[in-house]
Amino acid sequence: MAPSTALMTDRYELTMLDASLRDGSAHRRCVFELFGRRLSGGRRFGVAAGQGRLLGLLRDFRFGEEELAFLRDERVVSDETVRYLENYRFSGSIAGYREGELYFPGSPLLTVEATFADAVILETLALSVLNHDSAIATAAARMSIAAGDRPLAEMGSRRAHEHGAVAAARAAYIAGFTATSNLEAGRRWGVPTMGTAAHSWTLLHDSEEDAFRSQVASLGEDTTLLVDTYDIAEGVRRAVEIGGPRLGGVRIDSGDLPLVAAEVREQLDRLGNHDTRITVTSDLDEYAIAALAASPVDSYGVGTSLVTGSGYPTAGLVYKLVAREDASGTWIPVAKKAQDKSSTGGRKSAFRRLEVDRATEEIVCPADAAAPTDARTLVRTLVDGGDIDAAAEGAAGVRAAREHHLRVRNELPVRALALSKSDPALPTVSA
Amino acid sequence: MAPSTALMTDRYELTMLDASLRDGSAHRRCVFELFGRRLSGGRRFGVAAGQGRLLGLLRDFRFGEEELAFLRDERVVSDETVRYLENYRFSGSIAGYREGELYFPGSPLLTVEATFADAVILETLALSVLNHDSAIATAAARMSIAAGDRPLAEMGSRRAHEHGAVAAARAAYIAGFTATSNLEAGRRWGVPTMGTAAHSWTLLHDSEEDAFRSQVASLGEDTTLLVDTYDIAEGVRRAVEIGGPRLGGVRIDSGDLPLVAAEVREQLDRLGNHDTRITVTSDLDEYAIAALAASPVDSYGVGTSLVTGSGYPTAGLVYKLVAREDASGTWIPVAKKAQDKSSTGGRKSAFRRLEVDRATEEIVCPADAAAPTDARTLVRTLVDGGDIDAAAEGAAGVRAAREHHLRVRNELPVRALALSKSDPALPTVSA
Repeated sequence: MAPSTALMTDRYELTMLDASLRDGSAHRRCVFELFGRRLSGGRRFGVAAGQGRLLGLLRDFRFGEEELAFLRDERVVSDETVRYLENYRFSGSIAGYREGELYFPGSPLLTVEATFADAVILETLALSVLNHDSAIATAAARMSIAAGDRPLAEMGSRRAHEHGAVAAARAAYIAGFTATSNLEAGRRWGVPTMGTAAHSWTLLHDSEEDAFRSQVASLGEDTTLLVDTYDIAEGVRRAVEIGGPRLGGVRIDSGDLPLVAAEVREQLDRLGNHDTRITVTSDLDEYAIAALAASPVDSYGVGTSLVTGSGYPTAGLVYKLVAREDASGTWIPVAKKAQDKSSTGGRKSAFRRLEVDRATEEIVCPADAAAPTDARTLVRTLVDGGDIDAAAEGAAGVRAAREHHLRVRNELPVRALALSKSDPALPTVSA
Repeated sequence: MAPSTALMTDRYELTMLDASLRDGSAHRRCVFELFGRRLSGGRRFGVAAGQGRLLGLLRDFRFGEEELAFLRDERVVSDETVRYLENYRFSGSIAGYREGELYFPGSPLLTVEATFADAVILETLALSVLNHDSAIATAAARMSIAAGDRPLAEMGSRRAHEHGAVAAARAAYIAGFTATSNLEAGRRWGVPTMGTAAHSWTLLHDSEEDAFRSQVASLGEDTTLLVDTYDIAEGVRRAVEIGGPRLGGVRIDSGDLPLVAAEVREQLDRLGNHDTRITVTSDLDEYAIAALAASPVDSYGVGTSLVTGSGYPTAGLVYKLVAREDASGTWIPVAKKAQDKSSTGGRKSAFRRLEVDRATEEIVCPADAAAPTDARTLVRTLVDGGDIDAAAEGAAGVRAAREHHLRVRNELPVRALALSKSDPALPTVSA
């Protein structure tokens, strides 16, 4: 059985559950909404990601003996609440944006309708997953736009928490990356994996020549040789000598990349290796990738900046109560008024207005308003009375999310594709 | 059985293993070193963290049927290598800095001595853990210094990957935080947990008064009431009315904190609640905490900036081959020469020079050099021929790391405690 995810949560979710079971408010039906007040970092759009992961984690959200013992021994909650949690399974409903969908300020990415008890204890987990994965996917989409048709690999596992790295590889693939170096992302989510060789490979051997010969013997002539351990020009000369005219590629991981790439291309061509590809991997981000657009680079590998969200490692999404029943069962819209952190009450629907296949507005309106015309509905059911939509999970969910993302990204106006800081590319309107 | 950690790695580690098994270099003994070339963000010191987690993950680093099937089916490695991995257990040795220790450019945080086969496939996992946890611990230490004697709670789970959040809570505690909101960090690592209540608690009820009454009834008069859902002055008045003279605390999560804290303190005192504490939690980082030093604040809660390393979410540590045996069994120091990314060959020792209990230098010297006088040795055995030091693992390891960190932080010169960007507080010298 998979480890429980139920304690990956803030203590106050459980103490609020405890207090609400005492005063009876635990059973009030509620609507919580997960959304962002703004886009981090002057980004022009956000990419929603993590929904498929969240559904899997929801299946494992149960309180086993170890979890209950901790809550009991540490007196986090009362014995009555421990008993309540013994048989806890989420029985509410969740509607939300598809994974890979774009979002804008106020877009209701998830809408959780459930009792307070059911909905409150999902808060931390839902936010952890969507804040992390959406931050990575948003950065990844910008890099993918900058890379154009050139392959783009994710290689940042070593610069991220070991589980975060797997999720980052998955989110990057959804947002347009071609492959990842992370094997677990391959195994668990079906993301294509790739790799070259490290400097340690060259240093392990008595000479660069020995290292290259061994790599070509093991991985074939289509492999990519890392040529900058000692001297790049010498490394390229040796790579071609050993790999022959059909050598797959060379990788450059240091130096002034536009300059070095041009020199290496020129050298490869001079040696007759017109089809040997150049991969660059040194501290790239979306701006560095864009700056290499005119350089003879065939593919990119991105590490640190991808797994850290290129300056914005969390998406800043929040989870707020927007409606609840009162004692008589009447729905009441609610909203907090705290300075700079206010929310808008009431359950919402969302649509993207399209004019000739081009997105023009994000419509966020009361759930009972009439659906607008010329607009695509953005909210669909993910969990229905506790039943989880299996199609959104696993490797099939990832593939579907990637296809959806690439499709809807194509609907964006051209100004949305620029990398500089600006306002959201689509205005969020209420009708 | 805990899930395997063996595929949380880059594909090229496995393909290099595969090629080295073919050419025989897999069995060469190697020394790999994990270190940072510089301190991120002009920090004056780094805090090494994650060693205790890494040791636990090393126990689970084995290739089970699922992992082997993936490697076989995807043709990541040859059938011979799959058979080699069936019985793989790390049998090398690891020496390193204690968890919670300070570090500086070039400090050899981990030294892995093993065959190339054993050492190369640990690279990604070791870097993932230490890069993440050290980045968080370094940021946490700065916040802890800024907070002085005031309690400092970690509340950032919702802004980080769900597993990263647990590790972040653990790292923050090691570096001086008092508690965390993350329950799994409490269960797994013994970190003290704490919590107040969310805005949804107030909004769930028919009135703020109902919410406060229920919370006090459930959690007792020592609880902390969140007073900014509607109007802070009104919230404070109501909190005192309901919580009485011994109300534990009020929390403020919005507004101009120095101003609001002063007003709330004045109001509480006027109402006779001199012992009711004020907790502030709105977008704090080390600079905001320092700016509140003269304000009547009793405790801090830090979220986003902690889990994202306050601008530097990864520590930038690297793992490099520094020595290996040649075909005749002679040790050869090795180093790459790539521009801006060079390394220094040879196995190293490290010491901290102290003058009257005050640290003055970080000494990083060849392992066979004589130990300097007036210096504390920094490297100790963590894994000895495959045997893992159990004392460094689990909750006991976390407690020991925290005590060690607070002790060695006290040795730093005063200039090391400033928050502004500067050079490392101690020079790294070679003797």
